[in-house]
Amino acid sequence: MKIAALAGGVGGAKLAQGLARCHPAEKLTIIVNTGDDFEHFGLKICPDLDTVCYTLAGMENPSTGWGLRDETWNALQAVTSIGGPDWFGIGDKDLGTHLERTRRLRAGETLSGITREFCNFWSVEPLVIPMSDDAVPTVVITESNELDFQDYFVRQKCEPQVKGFKFSGSHRSKPAPGVLENIDGADIVIVCPSNPWVSIDPILALPGVRSALGGKPVIAISPIIGGKAVKGPAAKMFSELGIKASPLAVAEHYGSRQGGGLLSGFVMDDVDAALKAKIENLGLLVLVTDTLMRGSEDRIRLARQVIAFGETTIRREVS
Amino acid sequence: MKIAALAGGVGGAKLAQGLARCHPAEKLTIIVNTGDDFEHFGLKICPDLDTVCYTLAGMENPSTGWGLRDETWNALQAVTSIGGPDWFGIGDKDLGTHLERTRRLRAGETLSGITREFCNFWSVEPLVIPMSDDAVPTVVITESNELDFQDYFVRQKCEPQVKGFKFSGSHRSKPAPGVLENIDGADIVIVCPSNPWVSIDPILALPGVRSALGGKPVIAISPIIGGKAVKGPAAKMFSELGIKASPLAVAEHYGSRQGGGLLSGFVMDDVDAALKAKIENLGLLVLVTDTLMRGSEDRIRLARQVIAFGETTIRREVS
Repeated sequence: MKIAALAGGVGGAKLAQGLARCHPAEKLTIIVNTGDDFEHFGLKICPDLDTVCYTLAGMENPSTGWGLRDETWNALQAVTSIGGPDWFGIGDKDLGTHLERTRRLRAGETLSGITREFCNFWSVEPLVIPMSDDAVPTVVITESNELDFQDYFVRQKCEPQVKGFKFSGSHRSKPAPGVLENIDGADIVIVCPSNPWVSIDPILALPGVRSALGGKPVIAISPIIGGKAVKGPAAKMFSELGIKASPLAVAEHYGSRQGGGLLSGFVMDDVDAALKAKIENLGLLVLVTDTLMRGSEDRIRLARQVIAFGETTIRREVS
Repeated sequence: MKIAALAGGVGGAKLAQGLARCHPAEKLTIIVNTGDDFEHFGLKICPDLDTVCYTLAGMENPSTGWGLRDETWNALQAVTSIGGPDWFGIGDKDLGTHLERTRRLRAGETLSGITREFCNFWSVEPLVIPMSDDAVPTVVITESNELDFQDYFVRQKCEPQVKGFKFSGSHRSKPAPGVLENIDGADIVIVCPSNPWVSIDPILALPGVRSALGGKPVIAISPIIGGKAVKGPAAKMFSELGIKASPLAVAEHYGSRQGGGLLSGFVMDDVDAALKAKIENLGLLVLVTDTLMRGSEDRIRLARQVIAFGETTIRREVS
């Protein structure tokens, strides 16, 4: 079974790692949000992409959710010693990634090509594709102004109230080479438990992605468990947009195939089992299981369950 | 006595430090070559400027002649682990300087303004001015092609034979604010024992610098001792350009005021004492002394001697 997975940051990276450890690498493609990419100190930084790649490589920092393990912080300390900003944490080793990526981009290479080569060096076997080689920066619309994503997310610690999001220029941009092809070639598409608003929607906003998904069984895993996001501002965003944060809200956000939306199936946590019937009523197959990924074994177990559920979904769609 | 010193890399930095330790900071301006500046990994790197500032701050790495002491190399190691170039050594702390400088330049600040602020943070008291806020990259003309300076200097380890130099676009550029003013305001200008071809000539090539120097007593310290450069390719350059490397060659390179050139006085090493008469014959006052700066005490002693010699030169010019 060929799988294409859409992923954002930490939650997406964890499930992607689970999938990579229980499914043949040549049958797995991870398409990663780059709406959170930005320039800092003149360097191109791709937080979600790096989190996914570092996690697949087993180099991730498990305590922060971003960056590399066993880091040193000498460059950033030097920056702050001359009055520079330290709101965005960059370790010395992590800097190496940003430096070499920036160098290659300036030499005319594409982000998708660079990512493929970095993954070779890092022994990451599944194909990892940034959603676009074009810059498609996510803008957070708040009560008072519009914020660059990392300004909202890191510098202001997600404190401003959100009113909506803009995926600037995504209609003028293209999915990276391999994005549409690997969706088209997939037997199933998995929407990882990433933030729907700022991790998955930016991917869906790219020209051609929704229509490519239209022909495929698509299953999403809820990033909301018991009304809360495991990590990040997803629940806060739902709430500020006037929606009670729950797996039902996530399922309604993506919509069911039957209702003109995206999904064929939906995976949610045991603690939300009471919502199962309501979500099924949207026209979705539903898997209720333990979706919290504490460690590596949880990731593999959940990945296996999602794949098995995907096979059921495919059979249902065919029949 | 107000002093303006022209400096390049290590030799210039050492004498600048000596001057700073024996002369009031408010009466000392160091004007630094930026012809060796370049972009690497998307960052603006100013090797001579940083060497001068780090040395004045007492943070320099005494064994390399560039970079900071007590460095770590994690970023560059990460770069090489993904196939990136390591020919230009950048330590983690040194990176902090390049990151914050690049960030500020992109925010619209000038190199001279940034340098002033960094020097405040580093407690560097004399005014340090990069020669220009414009990019004026030195190009090395070799037998077979033209090379960017750092390509020649670091990547190719000065191995190509030089045929000449170009200071690209210096006629279209401006000295940084304070350069001409501090030369005009100086009682004496000291040309540090830096490479005449690639450290001092780029400064002299800027519009207005030579004519500002025309009205001042100017003394140069020979970077060539016993036919060799203390550090760097100065002697090799003289030789490849068909000139026997010696203090005489340096004095003739700059020329005497009397012969239509730059200098009023010249400082050379004891080992070259036999050339004294020939250099005096150019019309120069000559000081012969121990010019090799081994440690901090040598720097201060030489600086004191140069200042005293400068006072003699001024009296001679006035009389």
